[in-house]
Amino acid sequence: TERPRHQGMAKNTNMRWRLPLVCLLWEAAMIVLFGVFVRFGTEADAHWEEEKGEMNLTSDMENDFYFRYPSFQDVHVMIFVGFGFLMTFLKRYGFGAVGFNFLLAAFGIQWALLMQGWFHSFKDGKILIGVENLINADFCVGSVCIAFGAILGKTSPIQLLVMTLFQVTLFSVNEYILLNLLHVKDAGGSMTIHTFGAYFGLTVTRVLYRPNLEQSKDKQGSVYHSDLFAMIGTLYLWMYWPSFNSAISDHGDAQHRSAINTYCSLAACVLTTMAFSSMLQKKGKLDMVHIQNATLAGGVAVGTSAEMMLTPYGSLIVGSISGIVSTVGYVYFTPFLESRLHIQDTCGIHNLHAMPGLIGGIVGAITAAAATEDVYGKEGFVKAFDFTGVYQTRTASIQGGFQAAGIVVSLLMAFAGGAIVGGILKLPIWGDAAAENCFEDDIYWEVPEDEESDVYHMHNPDKPASP
Amino acid sequence: TERPRHQGMAKNTNMRWRLPLVCLLWEAAMIVLFGVFVRFGTEADAHWEEEKGEMNLTSDMENDFYFRYPSFQDVHVMIFVGFGFLMTFLKRYGFGAVGFNFLLAAFGIQWALLMQGWFHSFKDGKILIGVENLINADFCVGSVCIAFGAILGKTSPIQLLVMTLFQVTLFSVNEYILLNLLHVKDAGGSMTIHTFGAYFGLTVTRVLYRPNLEQSKDKQGSVYHSDLFAMIGTLYLWMYWPSFNSAISDHGDAQHRSAINTYCSLAACVLTTMAFSSMLQKKGKLDMVHIQNATLAGGVAVGTSAEMMLTPYGSLIVGSISGIVSTVGYVYFTPFLESRLHIQDTCGIHNLHAMPGLIGGIVGAITAAAATEDVYGKEGFVKAFDFTGVYQTRTASIQGGFQAAGIVVSLLMAFAGGAIVGGILKLPIWGDAAAENCFEDDIYWEVPEDEESDVYHMHNPDKPASP
Amino acid sequence: TERPRHQGMAKNTNMRWRLPLVCLLWEAAMIVLFGVFVRFGTEADAHWEEEKGEMNLTSDMENDFYFRYPSFQDVHVMIFVGFGFLMTFLKRYGFGAVGFNFLLAAFGIQWALLMQGWFHSFKDGKILIGVENLINADFCVGSVCIAFGAILGKTSPIQLLVMTLFQVTLFSVNEYILLNLLHVKDAGGSMTIHTFGAYFGLTVTRVLYRPNLEQSKDKQGSVYHSDLFAMIGTLYLWMYWPSFNSAISDHGDAQHRSAINTYCSLAACVLTTMAFSSMLQKKGKLDMVHIQNATLAGGVAVGTSAEMMLTPYGSLIVGSISGIVSTVGYVYFTPFLESRLHIQDTCGIHNLHAMPGLIGGIVGAITAAAATEDVYGKEGFVKAFDFTGVYQTRTASIQGGFQAAGIVVSLLMAFAGGAIVGGILKLPIWGDAAAENCFEDDIYWEVPEDEESDVYHMHNPDKPASP
Repeated sequence: TERPRHQGMAKNTNMRWRLPLVCLLWEAAMIVLFGVFVRFGTEADAHWEEEKGEMNLTSDMENDFYFRYPSFQDVHVMIFVGFGFLMTFLKRYGFGAVGFNFLLAAFGIQWALLMQGWFHSFKDGKILIGVENLINADFCVGSVCIAFGAILGKTSPIQLLVMTLFQVTLFSVNEYILLNLLHVKDAGGSMTIHTFGAYFGLTVTRVLYRPNLEQSKDKQGSVYHSDLFAMIGTLYLWMYWPSFNSAISDHGDAQHRSAINTYCSLAACVLTTMAFSSMLQKKGKLDMVHIQNATLAGGVAVGTSAEMMLTPYGSLIVGSISGIVSTVGYVYFTPFLESRLHIQDTCGIHNLHAMPGLIGGIVGAITAAAATEDVYGKEGFVKAFDFTGVYQTRTASIQGGFQAAGIVVSLLMAFAGGAIVGGILKLPIWGDAAAENCFEDDIYWEVPEDEESDVYHMHNPDKPASP
Repeated sequence: TERPRHQGMAKNTNMRWRLPLVCLLWEAAMIVLFGVFVRFGTEADAHWEEEKGEMNLTSDMENDFYFRYPSFQDVHVMIFVGFGFLMTFLKRYGFGAVGFNFLLAAFGIQWALLMQGWFHSFKDGKILIGVENLINADFCVGSVCIAFGAILGKTSPIQLLVMTLFQVTLFSVNEYILLNLLHVKDAGGSMTIHTFGAYFGLTVTRVLYRPNLEQSKDKQGSVYHSDLFAMIGTLYLWMYWPSFNSAISDHGDAQHRSAINTYCSLAACVLTTMAFSSMLQKKGKLDMVHIQNATLAGGVAVGTSAEMMLTPYGSLIVGSISGIVSTVGYVYFTPFLESRLHIQDTCGIHNLHAMPGLIGGIVGAITAAAATEDVYGKEGFVKAFDFTGVYQTRTASIQGGFQAAGIVVSLLMAFAGGAIVGGILKLPIWGDAAAENCFEDDIYWEVPEDEESDVYHMHNPDKPASP
Repeated sequence: TERPRHQGMAKNTNMRWRLPLVCLLWEAAMIVLFGVFVRFGTEADAHWEEEKGEMNLTSDMENDFYFRYPSFQDVHVMIFVGFGFLMTFLKRYGFGAVGFNFLLAAFGIQWALLMQGWFHSFKDGKILIGVENLINADFCVGSVCIAFGAILGKTSPIQLLVMTLFQVTLFSVNEYILLNLLHVKDAGGSMTIHTFGAYFGLTVTRVLYRPNLEQSKDKQGSVYHSDLFAMIGTLYLWMYWPSFNSAISDHGDAQHRSAINTYCSLAACVLTTMAFSSMLQKKGKLDMVHIQNATLAGGVAVGTSAEMMLTPYGSLIVGSISGIVSTVGYVYFTPFLESRLHIQDTCGIHNLHAMPGLIGGIVGAITAAAATEDVYGKEGFVKAFDFTGVYQTRTASIQGGFQAAGIVVSLLMAFAGGAIVGGILKLPIWGDAAAENCFEDDIYWEVPEDEESDVYHMHNPDKPASP
C-alpha cells in the first residue's frame, strides 16, 4: 500500500548502506580514540580509595559524584526527553523528532567527551573523565539539539550526524575561547549553548533554503495528540532547567543560587507568555506553539547570570521580558525570517534560543559588571568570578566587557561555522528528501499502517483506504 | 470550519484583554514585591563562603541544597507533570488540563514564596529564600492543583488565577495556624495540602454549581489515548510521592523514614484499589478512573505520619484502607455528591484528596498520641516533635489533640474560604463558558483542525467534515 | 455495543471475584508478615539521633539516604514508567501494559522486601530496612517486569500475580546463592535480574505456548501514537540506566565509575542499533521496534562490570556489540524462536535482556579475572571485590571463575523455575483469554467507546459503528 504521492520522489533517500556505514565507522573511531585517550578521573578510579587519604577527605560524600549526579540526571532527561518530545509536535514526524534526536545526541556525547576533554581535562596524555564531563558533554549536545530544531523534518539522519560532528567540534573551540581565553562565566550556557547553537542552526537552515517547502505544508502543523506529546518535552525542560543552570556551578551557594534564580525566571516567563499569546490573537485564544516554547525562554535568558547575584526579583524581570520577546517572535519574526530572509525555522529556535540567548549574554555581562565586594562578600566575589592567578587584578567592569566579547565571539563562530557546515550539508550525497516529502516519517522509518493513516486518506477520497 | 454548536454560545469567553491584563499586572506586582522583600537566604548568598567558616562547617555538602534539592525536583515534577497530565484524561480538554495547571502553578509559586515567606522566613524586613522555600511554594500550589481538579473544564483561566491568588493566601494563613500556633506536624501535608485543598475546591465547585452540565456530557469521558496520557501523571505522582512526604522532614532519619513509609503505603494501596475496582463492577473489569486516582490515596493518607514511627506495616494498613475508601468513593460517593449535594467534582478529588486527607490527619494524630520515648529514643522523641522551647513540656497525647485540632481548623478554613472565593468566582465578568461548551479546549485554545476532529464529526452525520 | 467477535469467547475471563480475592488476601498476608518481621533499619529509625553519636558520625549527610535516594528514585521510574510504557507499543493493550505492570510491581516490591530481607537484612528476628532495601526490591521486581514482556497480552492479571509471587521467591534464592555463597559481584544485575528474569520468562511463555495466536495477529502490531508512548518508556530506561547500575555499588568511586561506564555503553549501543536496523531492511528504513528496545542492550550488558575498571573504551566496545546482537536478534532470532521453538516472546525479551544479560555476565567474569592491584590500587582491589574475611585469599582469576558459575546457576534456576511456574500458570483456573482475544484491553478493562474504535470498525464494514 505504498502511498502514491511518494512515487514522484526523485531523490534517493534509501539509507540502507550510507547510514550504517557512517554509524559503524564513527563508532569504531570513537572506540579507538577512547582507547588511546580516555581514562577515569581520580574520583571515579579505584585508586580513589587510596587518594582519598592523601587528599585528606574524611567522607565519600566529598566525591564530586554526590554534588552533581542528581543534576546530571536532570540534564540528561532534558536532552533526550525534553528536546526529543518538544519536537514531536508535528503530526507525522514524531519518530524522526524523538529518534533522530536520540541518534545525534548519543553520537554527540561521545565526540564531546573527546573534544571537551582535550581542551579541559587533558593530563599526561590522557583525558580524565568524571560526572562533570558527562554534564558538559550533554550541554554540548544540547546546542546540537537546538540547531536540529531549525532543520527538523528537512534533513536526513546522515546530515544530522555530519552536522553533529562539526558542531560539537566548533562548540568546543568556542567554549575554550570563552571560558579559558576570555575567562568568561557561562555556567548555564546562554552564550556557549543557546546563542551559538541557535545562530549556527539558523545559518545552516538558511544555506539549506528550500524554495518549494510549501509542498509539504499540510504536514507542518500539529494534531491534538502531538501537541500533548510536545508538552511532555516542554514541561521536562521547564522543570529541570534549574538543574541545567546549576549543574556545573561551584559547590555550595553558587549551585543553590543558580537553581533559585532559574526557578523564579521561568515562573515569570510563563505568565508573560500566556499574556502575549492571548493578546496577539484576535479571538484571544492561547496558542500551543507559544506555550510549548516561549515559556522556556526564561531559562535561557538567565543561563549566564543565574549563578551570579542576579537576585530573585532580577530573575523575575529577565524572565518576564524574555517570555514577551519570545512570544512576539513567534507571531511576527518567524514569518518575516521565512518570507524575507529565507530562513525556514521549523521549531522557531530563533524565538526560544537565539534572542533569549542574546538577552542571557547581555544580562550576564551587566550582572558581572555590576558586581561588588559588598554584594558578594570579599571571598565570595573572588570565588564567584574566579579572580585568582593571572586574573587576580581583573575588576567587575572589565569582566563585564569580556562577557560582552563572549557574545560577539559566539555569534561569529556560529555564523562562520553554520555557513561552512551548511555548505557541506548541501552536497547531494546525504539522502535528504524532496520538499514534498519533508516532515514525513514514512521516508526514513517503518511506519505502522494504522487507523490514523486511514483517516488521513479520508481527506483524499480519490485514494482508497488500505485494506 | 467553525463548529456550528459554538454559535449558540451566549457568554463572552474571549480572553483577549482580560487574561493579558491580569497576567501582566500581577506579574508586575510580583516583581515589585520581590524587589522590596525577597533576598537569597544564607546558604544561597555569595556571602556563604565567609559565613561557612563562622558556622564552623567543614564541607559544602552541609549546604541544605544537597539535602533537599533532589526531593525538590521530584516535587516539582509532581506539580507540573503529575497534576498536569493526571487531568488530561478528558477527551477534549488536554490543553486546558496541562496548560492551565502550568499557568496557575507558575503564578502560584511566586505568590506562595511571598505569603509563606512573610510567615516563616521573614528577617529584618526581608524574606530570605532557599531550596526549602521552593519546596514549600510547590506544596502550597499543590493544594491549588487539587482544587483545580474539582472545577476542571468548567472555568476560565482568569477564574483559575483569581482562585490561586486567594487560595494561596488562605493556605498560608492556615499553614501558619497549624505549624506555628498549634505546633502541629504535617510534613507531607495531609491536612494543610490535601484536606484544605480538596474541601476548598469542593466548596468552590458547589457554589459554582451548573444545573445544565449534562449538555456537555459527551465530552466528560475519556478516549483511549487520553487515558494513557493521564497514566503518565498518575505514575509520576505515585513514584515521587516518597519524595513529597520526605522533602521538608528533618535531615537524616526523618527524611529516610518518610520515604520508606510512603513507599510501603502506596504499594499496598495499588492492590486494594485493583481489588475493589474489579469487585464493584458486574463484569469484573478494571476501571482506569480508579487506577489513575485511587492508587495515589496511600500517599495522601500517610502525609502527616510518614515522618513519624508509623512503621512499615502501619503504612501498609493505612495504604490498604485508603485505597478501598477512595475506590468506593468513585463508585458510590461521587454520583451521590453530584445528584444530591450538587457538588460536581470533575476529577473526583473528594475520593483522592478529601477523604484520604482526613484519614491522613487522623492517622497522624493517633501516631503522635501513641509516640513514646521508648520507640523514638529520648533525643529522637524531642527531635521528631520538636518539643523544645515553649513546647518542652508537651506530651505525646497532648500533641495528638493538637493534631486533631489541626484537621478541624483546616476544614473550617476550607469551607469558609471556598464559599467566599466561590462567590467571587461566580461574578459574571471572568469569561467562563456556557454549560454546553464545558470540557472543550476549543473555547480558550487554538485547536488544530485535525483528523480526530473529523472523526468526531462522524458521529454527527448532519455536519460536514472539514475539507 | 458489545463487539460481536467477543461473543465467540469460550473462556471465562471475568475477574470479579478471583482478582479481588487474590489481591486482598495477599495484601492481608503482607500486613501480617510486615507486622511480625519488618522494622526500620538504624538509619531510618528515630534512634538514629542517638546512634549517630555512638557511630561517631559528624553529619546527617552520612546517612545512606543521601548516598542512594536520588538513584533509588531513578530506578523507581524505570520500573513503573520505563517498563510500563515500553510495553504500550501494542495498539490495544496500553492499559494492560501500564496497569498490570503497576499491579505486579506494587505487589512484588512488598514480597521482595520480605524475601530479600530474610536473606540479607535479618537481625535478631527482624528485617531492618532502609533505602538500599527499597532499591533491591525494585531490582527484584525488575526481573518480573522483564518476564512480563514475554507473556504480554496473553495472560490474566491473576496469572501475573501468581508468577510474581514465585519469581520473586526464586529471584531471592538465586541472588542469595550468587552474592552470598559464590561471593559474586553483580551490582547492575546482568545475571540476577536480566539473565534470570529473561530466561525465566521465556521458559514460562514456552510452557504457555498458544498454537492459535495468529487469530489475534491484527492486534500484535503498533499504531503511530502507541509507538511514541513506548518511546517514553525507552528513553526513561535509557537515561536512568546509569543510576540503575550504580545504585547499590559502594559509596564513592564505585558509584561514580558505574555511572560513567553505563553512560558510555548506552551511547555506543544507540549507534550500532541504528546502523543494523537500517542495514537489515531492504529499503533501509529504521524500525521503531529496534530503536525502542535494542538501544537499551548496552545497559544490560555492563550490568555486572560497570562498577569494575571496565574503562570507558571497554564500555563502548561492550555497548556496540550488544546493540548489534540485540538488533540481529529482533530480525532473525525472534521469528525463529516462535516458529521452531514455539517461544512466543511478545516484547522480544530474548533480544533485550537474555542475550545482553549473558554478554553482561561473561564480560563481568572476564573483567574480574583481569583485575590487578596495579589497575585498582592495593586498597581499591580489596574493596572492589570485597576480598575480606573468608575471601581474603581469593584471587582475580578465581573470582572470574565464580562469576562464570553465577551465569550457569542463574540459567539453571531460570529454566527450572520457569518450567514449574509455567506449569502452574497453565491450570485452567486463572481466567486467561482465548487466543482470539489476546492483546486486547477490552477483556480486563473498561475501555472507552471512543472515536478510534469507530475508525477500527471502518476496517470491518460489515460491523456497524457504535452510535
